[in-house]
Amino acid sequence: MQIIKKPEDAWYLIFSGDVSQKVGLVPTMGYLHEGHLSLVRRCRKENEKCVVSIFVNPIQFGPDEDLESYPRNMEKDLSLLEREGVDMVFAPDVSDMFSDDFSTFVDEKSLSSGLCGASRPGHFKGVCTIVLKLFNILRPDRAYFGEKDYQQLQVIKRMVRDLNLNIDVIGCPIVREKDGLAMSSRNMYLSEKERNSALLLHRSMLKAIKLVEEGERSCNMIKDSVMEIFDSDPKISAEYVCIKNSITLEDMDYLYSEAVLAVAASVGRARLIDNTRLKPL
Amino acid sequence: MQIIKKPEDAWYLIFSGDVSQKVGLVPTMGYLHEGHLSLVRRCRKENEKCVVSIFVNPIQFGPDEDLESYPRNMEKDLSLLEREGVDMVFAPDVSDMFSDDFSTFVDEKSLSSGLCGASRPGHFKGVCTIVLKLFNILRPDRAYFGEKDYQQLQVIKRMVRDLNLNIDVIGCPIVREKDGLAMSSRNMYLSEKERNSALLLHRSMLKAIKLVEEGERSCNMIKDSVMEIFDSDPKISAEYVCIKNSITLEDMDYLYSEAVLAVAASVGRARLIDNTRLKPL
Repeated sequence: MQIIKKPEDAWYLIFSGDVSQKVGLVPTMGYLHEGHLSLVRRCRKENEKCVVSIFVNPIQFGPDEDLESYPRNMEKDLSLLEREGVDMVFAPDVSDMFSDDFSTFVDEKSLSSGLCGASRPGHFKGVCTIVLKLFNILRPDRAYFGEKDYQQLQVIKRMVRDLNLNIDVIGCPIVREKDGLAMSSRNMYLSEKERNSALLLHRSMLKAIKLVEEGERSCNMIKDSVMEIFDSDPKISAEYVCIKNSITLEDMDYLYSEAVLAVAASVGRARLIDNTRLKPL
Repeated sequence: MQIIKKPEDAWYLIFSGDVSQKVGLVPTMGYLHEGHLSLVRRCRKENEKCVVSIFVNPIQFGPDEDLESYPRNMEKDLSLLEREGVDMVFAPDVSDMFSDDFSTFVDEKSLSSGLCGASRPGHFKGVCTIVLKLFNILRPDRAYFGEKDYQQLQVIKRMVRDLNLNIDVIGCPIVREKDGLAMSSRNMYLSEKERNSALLLHRSMLKAIKLVEEGERSCNMIKDSVMEIFDSDPKISAEYVCIKNSITLEDMDYLYSEAVLAVAASVGRARLIDNTRLKPL
């Protein structure tokens, strides 16, 4: 497994390889869990070369967010990736990616505005910018993202389409702990008690799915039922509960086609998100 | 000479070519003149494949600018390029480049802010976005831009650096008419009388160069002398006269190192720009 820190070295290796070999990329911020590893396994299966990037991207964190405390464990990450048979890990330093006079940003203006974009201004601009940089450095044919960050996945698909990148962006299903909590590096912020409250995110998803199965089609009714679950526990504070068209991310009043229910909530110092598809037959 | 309209067709042709062959790109808005052709000739000389794009990019024009009236002559452009031995022309329709829900933009935030960026908000965002799209579609190893659009050249170099594009951005000298007027598709807006006034742009450059040769180092003194020339003719109206560091585009008070004198002025309905290096020594 090659470990590369400098963009120029990655270029050299990618370009000197056999061009007919497909390259798959899994971009991560490290502190890897089974969710990441599910992306890595799919990437390995579908491509001759599997590249994983590990980079905690400062420009996607807001000034009051958890950039400093975001969990890191490079040694463990590398040993996990080695075991998965990854070909190359790209793990640059911040200074390798952002010069002092860095001044170019990629901004998706439509899908980025609601959901997490509303409370995290600049977040998706930071995400798009780093993902485009990683795409340009590592030149993947396919890139793998988790559906847990559903809005991010749609924003990146849109960026790839709009900027004429010849990259297949592949969303992979949410991986959950046995108790239903969606895997996230930020789950490590949770105390045992908080973790119990955090389970309400998944429970609210199941409730919504059940309502839809029973025939409920009013998005307001479904959202109210979800909010009731959050309101039942003072340790969890909902930031948003939204039902959106699964591609355009436009608000839906009535479930006439496939939608996504997306929620964000805070428990202790952890800001957690989760989502599920709602399919009205 | 292949003429391609669809991005997907260009991809196919570029990717099915011999990867070891270097591809050079000359992005243009058409209505080609000797300035464009000087870029094409250099591109042909330095690369195995020479690609020229012709696209009047709507998103770099402001609402009150000359998008509709911008001169176009595809037939003549193609015959000029054929004669130059160009390998491929990429000439997409607007709808091939911008879908109705297009929403991703590239924004350079530092070098874009002064000079033309001050009076043309969004202009360089439009330029960066289309140039990145063309780069992604046509995958050049080298790209050629005229130094007449000096700020544009620096902005694109910065974008290429910041976004880790493996492309050599090459600036080529301004080509002038016999009387000194910098070649521009917009010169066709000028009546004979207006053209006489437009010559003051170049004349002001020559005056500044002479002052520097004579030992003048105060940027204010030089700019005042340039302004005097413009003030002498009511048919020309200066928009800016600036002396900037030639790389950072920061204002200079004193000519301690190489600088660029950049001017923009209106004559009739034509907004014209010109620039020259000022080299103290």
